[in-house]
Amino acid sequence: MTSPVASPLEETVLIVGVGLIGGSIASAVRARGVARRVIGLGRDQSRLNAAVYRGLLDADFTDPVEAAKSATFVVVCTPVTRIIDDVRALLPHLPKSALVTDAGSTKQRIVAELADLADQQPTFVGSHPIAGSDKQGFEHADANLFLHRLCLITPTVQHSTETVARVERFWQGLGMTTQLMDAAIHDETLARTSHVPHVVAAAMANSIRETDLTFTGTGFRDTTRIAAGDADLWTTILMENTNAVRTSIATVQEQLALFDRAMANGDAKQLRSLLASAKSLRDQLSENVEGPMTNVERD
Amino acid sequence: MTSPVASPLEETVLIVGVGLIGGSIASAVRARGVARRVIGLGRDQSRLNAAVYRGLLDADFTDPVEAAKSATFVVVCTPVTRIIDDVRALLPHLPKSALVTDAGSTKQRIVAELADLADQQPTFVGSHPIAGSDKQGFEHADANLFLHRLCLITPTVQHSTETVARVERFWQGLGMTTQLMDAAIHDETLARTSHVPHVVAAAMANSIRETDLTFTGTGFRDTTRIAAGDADLWTTILMENTNAVRTSIATVQEQLALFDRAMANGDAKQLRSLLASAKSLRDQLSENVEGPMTNVERD
Repeated sequence: MTSPVASPLEETVLIVGVGLIGGSIASAVRARGVARRVIGLGRDQSRLNAAVYRGLLDADFTDPVEAAKSATFVVVCTPVTRIIDDVRALLPHLPKSALVTDAGSTKQRIVAELADLADQQPTFVGSHPIAGSDKQGFEHADANLFLHRLCLITPTVQHSTETVARVERFWQGLGMTTQLMDAAIHDETLARTSHVPHVVAAAMANSIRETDLTFTGTGFRDTTRIAAGDADLWTTILMENTNAVRTSIATVQEQLALFDRAMANGDAKQLRSLLASAKSLRDQLSENVEGPMTNVERD
Repeated sequence: MTSPVASPLEETVLIVGVGLIGGSIASAVRARGVARRVIGLGRDQSRLNAAVYRGLLDADFTDPVEAAKSATFVVVCTPVTRIIDDVRALLPHLPKSALVTDAGSTKQRIVAELADLADQQPTFVGSHPIAGSDKQGFEHADANLFLHRLCLITPTVQHSTETVARVERFWQGLGMTTQLMDAAIHDETLARTSHVPHVVAAAMANSIRETDLTFTGTGFRDTTRIAAGDADLWTTILMENTNAVRTSIATVQEQLALFDRAMANGDAKQLRSLLASAKSLRDQLSENVEGPMTNVERD
């Protein structure tokens, strides 16, 4: 579904953490009529004022108790290390029928620590809308950020089909496709496809000398582009998903060792085989096709 | 110098291996009036016919003896494993005043094995014009491929200043900037800035599963883009520059180990430091500045 919804899905959507993602969700909800009202909860009143002024929010709060009172659907868009606390702070004050979800790029710990809420009211179910840009802040909020993007949703066996359907409809209302995934498998998968590429890009960048910069071309630039990502953000993500990331780093190390050994043995055949295998996989990602994750992933 | 030369620098330029690079050199020489004539030497008569038909060459040869007779300036643009043999095949038949150079992306072995020609006539001096695209074949020849690009030239102490000046003028005539570099340092530097990024990109691509492809975003795409490079070409380059590439792979592996250890120790501070260091280096490559090597390096 990429056109606006026929009638609002939710009464009042509460965005916790009105940054790039939270601001874009607010913007998309309004543009697409997904809810009747959009309100925001944050820590910095002047930032909230600016977000309201920009037309993103109908109301703003710095007190979770007040924010929760009228919220029927909550999306927590704060850094992954704060999501659990932010959810717990709202719970006692939310209407019973409220659904709480998040936008965190790691899921396992969040889902595990909030698992008690799966079959309670209000309820919590984890989401990871895979969208973003290399920008930061609600000033860059984009109602179209989620169009055709993929949202992974990570229910447990305790979640009801109604809860899952409700959160899926929300993200679909923003123009996303949705897919259910086990939280642990989510973190392992994203370690391989998103988190470790950052580590690899950074390791590559750190492996040249400053005097080498003149002699770099687009190959180096492409391989290290995402190393320019926000260091605080990525420290947080890597600390949250340490085990899965380390497992995947070990895989990359093994691959590098295969290349190294082929060269040590002067084994052109094996070298070619490794390169051809990589090319074959990479060729499956057409540059011209707008896939569900073709924006820079950004939390 | 980026405008055409005032008068031809050379009488007859002979291109050996009329592919993307050789074809582009031919095209640039003609467009910019660098020589009076451009002729080509290759192994496939039908391909040479097509290159002539396309207007790239004034004459074509499959016999090095015949090709050499009227050549005053030679650029050998064949794969790096063939360059030495191709140079030797021409030498006895070239005019004494002829200068032979190449376009190979590795230099040490080529320069070492042809070192006897440094102070002889005809002479050989190594070049590496750092330019390219991800295309192949003379059909994609581009007279502008070398504009503002960097050409590394690798003379030995035996080369005369006249020889070096002559080959520099040639590449500058194509619109390149030139820089002299020791051949061994060239290979070590390019290992870090160009060859190992390919290995790293391929290792990253080989580290995900096919079922992961749906969950990749621009981060993975950017980091693995150059893994789509031609497997034969890169096998050749890596085999030629094995020692320097292995040294640089070891550096990348050390960097990955630093990340791994920081995570194992839950050391967010160290993790942030590694990421910030990488960001700091990568930020020095502005995306908006057309540097001397901003095309995909391609040989």
